[in-house]
Amino acid sequence: MKATATANSNIALVKYWGKRNNELNLPNNSSISMSLNKLYTTTTVEFSNGIKTDSLIIDGKKASKEEIERTSKHLSIVRKLARKEIFARVESKNNFPKSAGLASSASGFAALSLAATKALDLHLDRKELSILARQGSGSASRSIEGGFVEWVKGSLEDGSDSYAKAIAPNDHWPELTMIVAVLTKKEKKTGSNAGMEKTPATSPFYKCWLDTVEQDLEKTKKAILEKNFSLLGKTAEMNCLKMHSTMLTTEPHLIYWEPETIKVIKEVLSLREQGTECYFTIDAGPQVKVLCMKKNSEKIKKYFSAMKEVKEIFVCTAGEGAKLTEKDLF
Amino acid sequence: MKATATANSNIALVKYWGKRNNELNLPNNSSISMSLNKLYTTTTVEFSNGIKTDSLIIDGKKASKEEIERTSKHLSIVRKLARKEIFARVESKNNFPKSAGLASSASGFAALSLAATKALDLHLDRKELSILARQGSGSASRSIEGGFVEWVKGSLEDGSDSYAKAIAPNDHWPELTMIVAVLTKKEKKTGSNAGMEKTPATSPFYKCWLDTVEQDLEKTKKAILEKNFSLLGKTAEMNCLKMHSTMLTTEPHLIYWEPETIKVIKEVLSLREQGTECYFTIDAGPQVKVLCMKKNSEKIKKYFSAMKEVKEIFVCTAGEGAKLTEKDLF
Repeated sequence: MKATATANSNIALVKYWGKRNNELNLPNNSSISMSLNKLYTTTTVEFSNGIKTDSLIIDGKKASKEEIERTSKHLSIVRKLARKEIFARVESKNNFPKSAGLASSASGFAALSLAATKALDLHLDRKELSILARQGSGSASRSIEGGFVEWVKGSLEDGSDSYAKAIAPNDHWPELTMIVAVLTKKEKKTGSNAGMEKTPATSPFYKCWLDTVEQDLEKTKKAILEKNFSLLGKTAEMNCLKMHSTMLTTEPHLIYWEPETIKVIKEVLSLREQGTECYFTIDAGPQVKVLCMKKNSEKIKKYFSAMKEVKEIFVCTAGEGAKLTEKDLF
Repeated sequence: MKATATANSNIALVKYWGKRNNELNLPNNSSISMSLNKLYTTTTVEFSNGIKTDSLIIDGKKASKEEIERTSKHLSIVRKLARKEIFARVESKNNFPKSAGLASSASGFAALSLAATKALDLHLDRKELSILARQGSGSASRSIEGGFVEWVKGSLEDGSDSYAKAIAPNDHWPELTMIVAVLTKKEKKTGSNAGMEKTPATSPFYKCWLDTVEQDLEKTKKAILEKNFSLLGKTAEMNCLKMHSTMLTTEPHLIYWEPETIKVIKEVLSLREQGTECYFTIDAGPQVKVLCMKKNSEKIKKYFSAMKEVKEIFVCTAGEGAKLTEKDLF
């Protein structure tokens, strides 16, 4: 009744923002992401009859009450699937800062879903795992498969058609590189869930977001399949700015950017003007992710590493899907 | 044939962004502004038969080719009105940084319009002056009248119904204060005219901007007339964020914010959370303007003056309209 899984984080190229069902994490729009091979969570789950409550350690520390509740709620879905009333000890490790806009909940809930179902001897396929992971954190649905995936929004009320499907595997486009510049390790003030609940109701721009996201999805799929870097980068950058515009115009305003974010955005634009093709994308947090081709990645990494605003840097390519591992954390 | 005028800058509470006619500066939407009593331009114009070209000095320096051309084009409208082929020597002085998002073109073209028409002995009324000033710079139409004005967009092709009308005079609401925090004196990379030409054609959010600006105008007029500070501040802040969202989603992106802008925005939000009611507004530039009531202005001024990011600070109330003065600059 013990298992360990690792899952990569993923960064959306076409973002997810706003839900049609908060309980089931059903999104208002489909999204597309790339799995990141250098950012991952490892999670060990051990169910045992001897304990009366779930426990959770993250990165060596006892988790907060909210984190434990959210994990416990997720484990309850797994318990229900297995028809067992049994509690678990969970330990989780991230190799990158959590709750800072680097999708730690995506890799976290993907790894938890795989480890917990394995520990209770449930054999879910990738689609079923994606649906399960989605209920823990929407973006976690995209961290079950590797490479490039589309989380199709679905239309059914129970969410059984809202899961992530592969667009292309992780070895499809090895030149495509995402450089993650960590600017602050502070946890963000408003989490993504709390934030995205308010946008559809209050942003006068949310309608324009929804009206234009379908064409971003089409362009991005085409760009991935045809390995058209300019189309991919241009579409992802604009999609990111559109999402942040809906955030800025939310009441109260969601300003996930920090001064350093603007600084790095302008450096990306300036590098591009000087002929080094690269594009930025930013999630619900201050960190900037830079898309580039492998031939430019060393140069861009050096450039950003030299900035005092950049605290840590990860140079990623498309990673694998979530997988079981033998190395338990306890 | 010589006259001198001064005009205050103005800051829009409901912004102007995007034109239906670039030549005549006819806007896609009406806008509302407050005249700023501490930021002004003084301009002396002297027509004389002895010179063969217009000349322009701004802040003691020979103006750039583009600035001279733009001024000369404006003087040609005045020459046409006066039916005279005669050139002018123009000298202009700002008491604040120009081309940095502080509406120096608003006060500049308002002062120029008044001084030039007076020098040629044309007697234009406020409406005619506003229409003339508008052709030099859209926002200059709002610097002819003092206090609070609405620049009505109009619908006629020749622009004869597109001018600024008074909503309330400058002594209507003496408690209302606008603190202008100058964060950088650098001239901006993309001027407002070049920027706003691109937004209507490329921003997928521009439609949502136009769809919601009418209600901002109604709320703002009501807030001014009833002296409802919360309604005014809230509406102005959201309107500003909406405009910047259309800029961010313009192709190529218009990012007028600097790192310091985000820093000051967050300080305003934090002051408000702590109970000091204040709101920000930002134009096509990095500077942040803070709306507050007089009772809090000293505290807020001190607070921002202490920030290393703030280079200069102006505490303004609603100013007067453009006026002639006896003190010539040469």
